[in-house]
Amino acid sequence: MFTPMFSTPDAERRTGGRAWLQAMLDFEAALARAQARAGLVPPEAAHEIGAHCRAELFDLDSISRRAVGPATPVIALVDDLGSRLGPDARRWVHLGATSQDVLDTAAMLIARRTLEQVLADLRAAARRCAELAREHRDSPVIGRSLLQQALPTTFGRRCAGWLVSLTDTTAALHHVVERRLAVQLGGPVGTCGALGERGPEVLRRLAAELGLAEPVAPWHTDRTRVAELAGALGTSAGALGKIALDVELHAQTEVGELAEGSAGGSSAMPHKRNPAGSVLISAAAHRAPGLVATLLAAMPQAYERGAGSWQAEQEPLVELLRLAAAAASGARRLLGGLRVDAARMAANLELTGGLITAGSAAEALLPLGRAEAQGLVRELCERVTVDGGTLRAAMLADERVRAVLSEQEVRAATDPAGHLGAAREFVDRALAHHDSEGTRR
Amino acid sequence: MFTPMFSTPDAERRTGGRAWLQAMLDFEAALARAQARAGLVPPEAAHEIGAHCRAELFDLDSISRRAVGPATPVIALVDDLGSRLGPDARRWVHLGATSQDVLDTAAMLIARRTLEQVLADLRAAARRCAELAREHRDSPVIGRSLLQQALPTTFGRRCAGWLVSLTDTTAALHHVVERRLAVQLGGPVGTCGALGERGPEVLRRLAAELGLAEPVAPWHTDRTRVAELAGALGTSAGALGKIALDVELHAQTEVGELAEGSAGGSSAMPHKRNPAGSVLISAAAHRAPGLVATLLAAMPQAYERGAGSWQAEQEPLVELLRLAAAAASGARRLLGGLRVDAARMAANLELTGGLITAGSAAEALLPLGRAEAQGLVRELCERVTVDGGTLRAAMLADERVRAVLSEQEVRAATDPAGHLGAAREFVDRALAHHDSEGTRR
Amino acid sequence: MFTPMFSTPDAERRTGGRAWLQAMLDFEAALARAQARAGLVPPEAAHEIGAHCRAELFDLDSISRRAVGPATPVIALVDDLGSRLGPDARRWVHLGATSQDVLDTAAMLIARRTLEQVLADLRAAARRCAELAREHRDSPVIGRSLLQQALPTTFGRRCAGWLVSLTDTTAALHHVVERRLAVQLGGPVGTCGALGERGPEVLRRLAAELGLAEPVAPWHTDRTRVAELAGALGTSAGALGKIALDVELHAQTEVGELAEGSAGGSSAMPHKRNPAGSVLISAAAHRAPGLVATLLAAMPQAYERGAGSWQAEQEPLVELLRLAAAAASGARRLLGGLRVDAARMAANLELTGGLITAGSAAEALLPLGRAEAQGLVRELCERVTVDGGTLRAAMLADERVRAVLSEQEVRAATDPAGHLGAAREFVDRALAHHDSEGTRR
Amino acid sequence: MFTPMFSTPDAERRTGGRAWLQAMLDFEAALARAQARAGLVPPEAAHEIGAHCRAELFDLDSISRRAVGPATPVIALVDDLGSRLGPDARRWVHLGATSQDVLDTAAMLIARRTLEQVLADLRAAARRCAELAREHRDSPVIGRSLLQQALPTTFGRRCAGWLVSLTDTTAALHHVVERRLAVQLGGPVGTCGALGERGPEVLRRLAAELGLAEPVAPWHTDRTRVAELAGALGTSAGALGKIALDVELHAQTEVGELAEGSAGGSSAMPHKRNPAGSVLISAAAHRAPGLVATLLAAMPQAYERGAGSWQAEQEPLVELLRLAAAAASGARRLLGGLRVDAARMAANLELTGGLITAGSAAEALLPLGRAEAQGLVRELCERVTVDGGTLRAAMLADERVRAVLSEQEVRAATDPAGHLGAAREFVDRALAHHDSEGTRR
Repeated sequence: MFTPMFSTPDAERRTGGRAWLQAMLDFEAALARAQARAGLVPPEAAHEIGAHCRAELFDLDSISRRAVGPATPVIALVDDLGSRLGPDARRWVHLGATSQDVLDTAAMLIARRTLEQVLADLRAAARRCAELAREHRDSPVIGRSLLQQALPTTFGRRCAGWLVSLTDTTAALHHVVERRLAVQLGGPVGTCGALGERGPEVLRRLAAELGLAEPVAPWHTDRTRVAELAGALGTSAGALGKIALDVELHAQTEVGELAEGSAGGSSAMPHKRNPAGSVLISAAAHRAPGLVATLLAAMPQAYERGAGSWQAEQEPLVELLRLAAAAASGARRLLGGLRVDAARMAANLELTGGLITAGSAAEALLPLGRAEAQGLVRELCERVTVDGGTLRAAMLADERVRAVLSEQEVRAATDPAGHLGAAREFVDRALAHHDSEGTRR
Repeated sequence: MFTPMFSTPDAERRTGGRAWLQAMLDFEAALARAQARAGLVPPEAAHEIGAHCRAELFDLDSISRRAVGPATPVIALVDDLGSRLGPDARRWVHLGATSQDVLDTAAMLIARRTLEQVLADLRAAARRCAELAREHRDSPVIGRSLLQQALPTTFGRRCAGWLVSLTDTTAALHHVVERRLAVQLGGPVGTCGALGERGPEVLRRLAAELGLAEPVAPWHTDRTRVAELAGALGTSAGALGKIALDVELHAQTEVGELAEGSAGGSSAMPHKRNPAGSVLISAAAHRAPGLVATLLAAMPQAYERGAGSWQAEQEPLVELLRLAAAAASGARRLLGGLRVDAARMAANLELTGGLITAGSAAEALLPLGRAEAQGLVRELCERVTVDGGTLRAAMLADERVRAVLSEQEVRAATDPAGHLGAAREFVDRALAHHDSEGTRR
Repeated sequence: MFTPMFSTPDAERRTGGRAWLQAMLDFEAALARAQARAGLVPPEAAHEIGAHCRAELFDLDSISRRAVGPATPVIALVDDLGSRLGPDARRWVHLGATSQDVLDTAAMLIARRTLEQVLADLRAAARRCAELAREHRDSPVIGRSLLQQALPTTFGRRCAGWLVSLTDTTAALHHVVERRLAVQLGGPVGTCGALGERGPEVLRRLAAELGLAEPVAPWHTDRTRVAELAGALGTSAGALGKIALDVELHAQTEVGELAEGSAGGSSAMPHKRNPAGSVLISAAAHRAPGLVATLLAAMPQAYERGAGSWQAEQEPLVELLRLAAAAASGARRLLGGLRVDAARMAANLELTGGLITAGSAAEALLPLGRAEAQGLVRELCERVTVDGGTLRAAMLADERVRAVLSEQEVRAATDPAGHLGAAREFVDRALAHHDSEGTRR
Repeated sequence: MFTPMFSTPDAERRTGGRAWLQAMLDFEAALARAQARAGLVPPEAAHEIGAHCRAELFDLDSISRRAVGPATPVIALVDDLGSRLGPDARRWVHLGATSQDVLDTAAMLIARRTLEQVLADLRAAARRCAELAREHRDSPVIGRSLLQQALPTTFGRRCAGWLVSLTDTTAALHHVVERRLAVQLGGPVGTCGALGERGPEVLRRLAAELGLAEPVAPWHTDRTRVAELAGALGTSAGALGKIALDVELHAQTEVGELAEGSAGGSSAMPHKRNPAGSVLISAAAHRAPGLVATLLAAMPQAYERGAGSWQAEQEPLVELLRLAAAAASGARRLLGGLRVDAARMAANLELTGGLITAGSAAEALLPLGRAEAQGLVRELCERVTVDGGTLRAAMLADERVRAVLSEQEVRAATDPAGHLGAAREFVDRALAHHDSEGTRR
């Protein structure tokens, strides 16, 4: 309750205790089926086991309580599952599996189920970015570096930057989901010892049952899969965090170029437009790196089962998934409702009295010689800074300028919209990149 | 359920949703009382408000649901509290407070309530360390560096190292609990604007009501208190992690010098003595640093209220508290039940055939000249390495040795227990340090 | 060269290779002197050793090269030192010390020498904050939350927030420097085995020689000192990062309330005032948390010497010291040169047409009844938002308002400067806190 | 000098100041050539510029000193380069580029050059793993979980785990090197404004000149490339850290199953075999996660140029590259020299008196019924634990056992080598996976 942003009902549904319970039961059911297909378990037993592997039949609180002592919920779960079965089926439950087999596989299932929604949200957010980029492809806006007004660009170009990062992080995350989320099955020391020669066959069939990848070998202490998942989630969170930071900055009262669709004030502060959606994403982006670091630091796990390092993984991984889900759905909403104030963008381009065009003005004056041109513009800029007015007016009033430039040329040289470089071409490239990545999948 | 180690009923009771609900209600009740004492609120209203500030009167699920939209539970809570009150009292609820005032103060209350138990557990663990150090003050054990047998020390000296770190981290954490957990009250921009000149007085009285420190000023974007708390918790977790790592290593089948009191095996692996208590502490120690980093990285918060950084704090802080609580209570249990196998320690001292006494052997032979003594010992050690036997036997059989050393002198030179340096004095110093820190408080 | 911000000549001088060389030599010299005082080493030998412990007499490159193989520079250093001495002195070099004794003590010396300057810079920065807070105690500025204009405060109050955090983090860091930077001396397994009963005495004398704290016992694998140092450095960096973030935000072209004294533009972008000083501090604040996490994660070190964890400490600790030094000296310069644009602050208070005073306006209209007052203000605010103008003008023109408020009362209700709460008292409290902390030391 | 492990001459050569100087000059030379091909710069000017872009012609110390003020070395570098050129060439230097273009591209060049060696080292290490796995495919060793002896596996299976992780992390890092290391060129706001319509063409030609990828658009504030690089480096470090941890544990005096080829002792401790190579890798693995977190946390960069976040990247990225290089070359050496003590492995399998075969013993006794079989084995195991001896002997002496099992059957049931499950098949699969990944590239 104290963290309503991330502990949403949806997050709880996907990654909470009941989701884990069902994922563990899915493992047990699929294991029995896989072993039946491999001829290790009677088909009827596998069928009976599978029929009982439904979370709603189990007492989550009881299992949780009995999990504290042995530091794993698997023993209580297997006991409760067994007690629901007849004696012929009971002996085949959890055959040849170790506690980590259940929990690693359940984690991968939780990850895949959560990430399907995350990928859908990321793709929707990217599509909306693409629309914004296309729509504002030619809309001038001041480019800012170190939070200072610098030179003109277009708002579409800025959105194109968001779009490229969303396209790329989504592709990377998609790769992990498809290729690196694998089943776990190896028994106590990763040899599938209790399954005799049938271990690899059961591993293959189990993967097919659960729709997860088949690993080369049990990966109890080879945590590269978890690390790659963490890296992809952390990168996604960072990319979304950049978008959220930009929206927060654009939405400042003093900038006012963007507003969130659902921004709200209060009766005491009717002028406020709190960027609540961006804040949620920013908070997620703040939290992800520490969790990624924890998962990377847990990679060195001793021999065939880590002592403390493996046990450190589950909660951070769940947190990362929750944060990624909150950030991705938040970004989809944020971008979907974003309000662009083109008039304010235009007004902000005028804030410096045209000093942001000093570079193009000097360029236009190159017929005077480079040093002369730069010196003259510098002089005029200083006058504008001190006395107010605009660089354009100062140039139009200056005889040295007028000796080489017509009024029209002065206007062109001091028009931000005339100096956008390849901003629009980069928009087109980003859109094409997005289209091709979208097609590839 | 999936993380039975840290999501215990006790952790839930201290830091879960209901604990936050009560802590927020405690803030509202104390605020009304403080304002009544300052003459801002009628005493009857404060009394009526206080009478309703009991978590069991509220619908946690409903408040949680209504918290998602505005990204804070405070609005729903204040609404529900108000709806329980008569019109005369209702208008005085939450007077002059902002959402962050409630949540920051609630976090500090949660921290204090959790840390009282943590401090008690740390002190009990330290006392047990002190007992172990005293009991094994003179028990020789092989000292190990880089996991290699090095030179002899005593097991008491090793425990003394644990003791000093527990003493010091407990003192540091105690300081934070006493001095740095402060109430928060400042209104939207930290001026207590709605309380007129009475702001500071209300702040002072609120601190007294809740037993928290009174801050110099509202600290909405001065997060040094949170950072110091995080640092102290991270340091404690690390100190406990060192003890847990040592126990895990001592408990290896091949070392066998320590066993956990409650270590358990399975019927299939009756020889296993899983160091489950140490593993829990190790897992906590693995996870703490990333959370500390997150809280430190969230310190730069803009102007009077952070956008994303403040909102990133709550869950990591709660996680840190849970991990600290699990590690501290785990260490208390672990040390309380620790079984020391002095015979195995003695046996392990013999594993190298006395090569660990090569240094003292060479020392004893210094009458031969330093180079001569070292060369001779090196020669004998090589023989022991190749042919087996012990350095003592090799020395007793060597004429060059016997020319300068009696049998008794050879035995003394190759007796690990005779070369313990100041191990025992360091035990005494650690015990005295523990006593004096304990006395100071 | 590629990181000019942090790899400054000053940083190199304090923490670079030559500084480490001298610190290690300081250890060897002080060790010999301490042992001479304890009667273990002839005074002449100690004198001769000390006379040669000057970094300029040694070949840093050669020692560096010979350090790679054994993964420690100590062996080469002791060899080179010995080769400079006569045979009578040579044998007393490094007596009873282990490589970690030298490196841990050298690290503490490096830390103390760097932190003396850091503390001086932090104190100067705090003094400048205090001046700013005093000078602008009464200067109205808009308070901002989530980067949105919220309610008025004073710029002095904002500076007071900076001041409190600087005061507190400086005090905490001072505590660590004075109490927690200790000498290390224990030999291979922390028993001072080679010094017989004189170990503790030598430890005490060595601490006195080097001006470091005397530890309760050798702390080879008790890393609480390092963790506390890391925590204090990380907290300082975060507190400075908050100030830097605020300056960057104030210095935005669209806000313009602050500028750095040395902000510079370029000829092509004459309007830019790059907040280069703040950027340096922000960069340091970004980097510190990861390094703190690394040092905390390295705390669990096995037995008497860590395998990998201890070896992971040195570079991150040096980096943290460099970052802290860069941030502290940067903050001193930044605050020293900060330009406050009070006129812009006043202008920004007007940006919303007085909507920021909606709360005080409604307060003034309470004679109409709370609901009526709030509804009326909301109506007028909406009109201002749509039609422009100011809330004050709208109120003056509204008959319902004028029925209960005089023109003067309307002006008072809509004057941001009239609703500053206890902003100024919090300034006074922060100044007093700063004075008392300054006095205490 | 103080960190000889990571600040090696090789690391300095690849990532030190001079390497950056050359990489920046490579950018300037390639930019001029690319612009000449695009018709923007006279070919003679590009040729002249290129001829002077050799690091040995520049004064690194002077550039470093002049880099501190403007917080970038680019201005001094361009000045010095220009001063070497005739006036016709000088004006074409650095055309249309911004400081970040130079530094980002230089960082990518440094990364690529370092990572070519890292990939070579990782592949060599993987090949050696493959050899070890093949060689010890059938060598029984005790499998360990939570550092406790558990059930038998083969040493080849353990090496196969290392092999799979090396194969996979190498493939992932290879992907990043080939696809994600891109040139940077966009000018102050990412529009290539000064290059008119030729920007994208120059970008493409620049990428070809430098052998880096061509980005979709300038990526000044889209840091997904850096984050993916960091993630891949962190994952590699973790995978190597797991191998190093395993070697450290195997090399313990009390385990003794592995030794490093170059392990060294000291005259005072002739029995020590310090796992110095593993320690170096472990230290690198400890440090990487915090650096990855820093780079992920720096992803949210404002508008077109980050304020503090971008500037926080360079040093951590260089550190990560150095650590990855040290860990990869260290692993190559470590695995190349690893000594496997099969006799000790066999001896350690006997340490528990055969209790590790309790599971297979009970399996063999299933004709007695499951409960009966397990009870009987448990009874015999307890006897072995208390009285010593072996489970095999106890079984052979027990009439209930002998009623159903022949001596040969008892021997088979208690032979660790007879219960290795699919250990050997997993070795074969890992070798095939390694071969196919190697072939694919």
